[in-house]
Amino acid sequence: MTIQHLLRKKTFLNLKSHLLLVVFALGGITINAQENIATKLGYAADAKLLIIHADDLGVAHSENIASFEAIENGAVNSASVMMPTPWVLEVANYAKAHPDTHDFGLHLVLSSEWKNYRWGPVSSINEVPSLINEHGYFHPDCETVVNIKEVEVELRAQIDRAYAMGLVPTHLDSHMGCLMQTEELVEAYLKMGQEYKLPVMVSKAFPEELRKKYDVKVVLEDILTIMPEQYAKGPEAYYNNAIKNLKPGVSTFLIHTAYDNDELKAMTIDHPDWGNAWRQKDYDYFTSDACTKLLKGENIQLVTWRQLKEAYYAD
Amino acid sequence: MTIQHLLRKKTFLNLKSHLLLVVFALGGITINAQENIATKLGYAADAKLLIIHADDLGVAHSENIASFEAIENGAVNSASVMMPTPWVLEVANYAKAHPDTHDFGLHLVLSSEWKNYRWGPVSSINEVPSLINEHGYFHPDCETVVNIKEVEVELRAQIDRAYAMGLVPTHLDSHMGCLMQTEELVEAYLKMGQEYKLPVMVSKAFPEELRKKYDVKVVLEDILTIMPEQYAKGPEAYYNNAIKNLKPGVSTFLIHTAYDNDELKAMTIDHPDWGNAWRQKDYDYFTSDACTKLLKGENIQLVTWRQLKEAYYAD
Repeated sequence: MTIQHLLRKKTFLNLKSHLLLVVFALGGITINAQENIATKLGYAADAKLLIIHADDLGVAHSENIASFEAIENGAVNSASVMMPTPWVLEVANYAKAHPDTHDFGLHLVLSSEWKNYRWGPVSSINEVPSLINEHGYFHPDCETVVNIKEVEVELRAQIDRAYAMGLVPTHLDSHMGCLMQTEELVEAYLKMGQEYKLPVMVSKAFPEELRKKYDVKVVLEDILTIMPEQYAKGPEAYYNNAIKNLKPGVSTFLIHTAYDNDELKAMTIDHPDWGNAWRQKDYDYFTSDACTKLLKGENIQLVTWRQLKEAYYAD
Repeated sequence: MTIQHLLRKKTFLNLKSHLLLVVFALGGITINAQENIATKLGYAADAKLLIIHADDLGVAHSENIASFEAIENGAVNSASVMMPTPWVLEVANYAKAHPDTHDFGLHLVLSSEWKNYRWGPVSSINEVPSLINEHGYFHPDCETVVNIKEVEVELRAQIDRAYAMGLVPTHLDSHMGCLMQTEELVEAYLKMGQEYKLPVMVSKAFPEELRKKYDVKVVLEDILTIMPEQYAKGPEAYYNNAIKNLKPGVSTFLIHTAYDNDELKAMTIDHPDWGNAWRQKDYDYFTSDACTKLLKGENIQLVTWRQLKEAYYAD
């Protein structure tokens, strides 16, 4: 089954989000021959390259400081930032203090999924009525019946705000995979990368014609993220297995690193999937010696979106 | 010196805010004869009535849960809520779970004072350009050069959102005293109370002609809030002294109750005044047995804005 097929059938539209459903479902399918990103970055053609990527920066102080720690002293080497969230300035200030070493992209946001802690658009709410609920917050799930022009207004507002804050993004990706729910949302997503000259987090599972249409220069081998049924069996087993079976080319883990403290417990209340314990375990795994040792043992090279941006999008 | 004099001279316009400057400066001056609120509420004419009022609900999870605890098991009996803040739904849900017993007003917000953690208007940002900075957040201090029509748009948006969330306010007050910075801001403040039939937190220090113009029915004797120079000498001494010297009539303490945890430390970073330690100490004092004992010993009756609203603003 191709992503095009899924998009046409819209089989995934009614599923609860908070996940990169399409990417996950198809992450293991190689549609095209491997593009030679590895040699472009100076590695052997069959090198196994990996971006260990923390999502959701800005969402909470706990998420920010745990992610900074996992970057500085763990295996995490990239992250993406949610511009509409309350703590985004903490990330922008961190990025400005680490101008050359941080690898922060934008986690483009069209949803606000927690019960007691919410955010709304960066743009004026009267410009994006299809994106918000009666209180001016984003809808909790990825809405598919949205006005695509409003989506583009909001995506541009988020990207523009990042630059205005001095947070120069290294890439774009999509919170809860909302921009992968319909073909027109995928197009809006890819269009932002083309307009702003930024790599977009897409894998070979994305429709080739869309990648060509929007001149996508960087295509990942796999986008790997743990799902609840795998999480229930133990995240270590999933991550160990994924690392041991990594394919040549550039892949990425999408993870969520945060400390399981009062703030995070309250934020993720009634939402165990991707919740407080989950995020602490992601932190624990990717700051463990075992993880570092396994990556080394498997001869996996960590690369960043900054390297990819510089290699493919330099003026 | 009268508040009118201050307003005309605008001597306080250039001072850093985060305080009820005018109210504090003049809180002890009795302009008019005591209105007989006490007898209206069923107490002796010379009764000493007190509202112990926690500001800033919604601002942080720490602030919310500490304030709920201080209300349920401490001396705090009233609070006010900041509608633009990230955690406001936690308060609205608490209020709906305690429909008859909570005493939550609205802490009307025109500022966003913390370094790494910010919020913006409830209304569309393109409708209130004078109220926001380049990132769409409220200014950090109380701005006085604001468009008063935009102020009213935003105040109504905050009040309307509260009702839409099922949070029926018992009163209105002003975050950081921003609505007491100029005479036209004071007028906007009082106008909201008149329009929405809600008591507004004003003392006798407010200009009598403005109180008459906007038909203010409830006027407090004193609005008491500790300032940094008093805080430095120890909050217990200030609060003990204020309780021992409470005047007959209805007065209020404005306090800030929160737990000094990681979230609060990060929120109040570089801002020791009204910061994490301050808020923990307010919590400690107003949940102490000593406080309860002193209130009893001084024969002080705790009353709420709900009682005042029902006595003066019932249809």
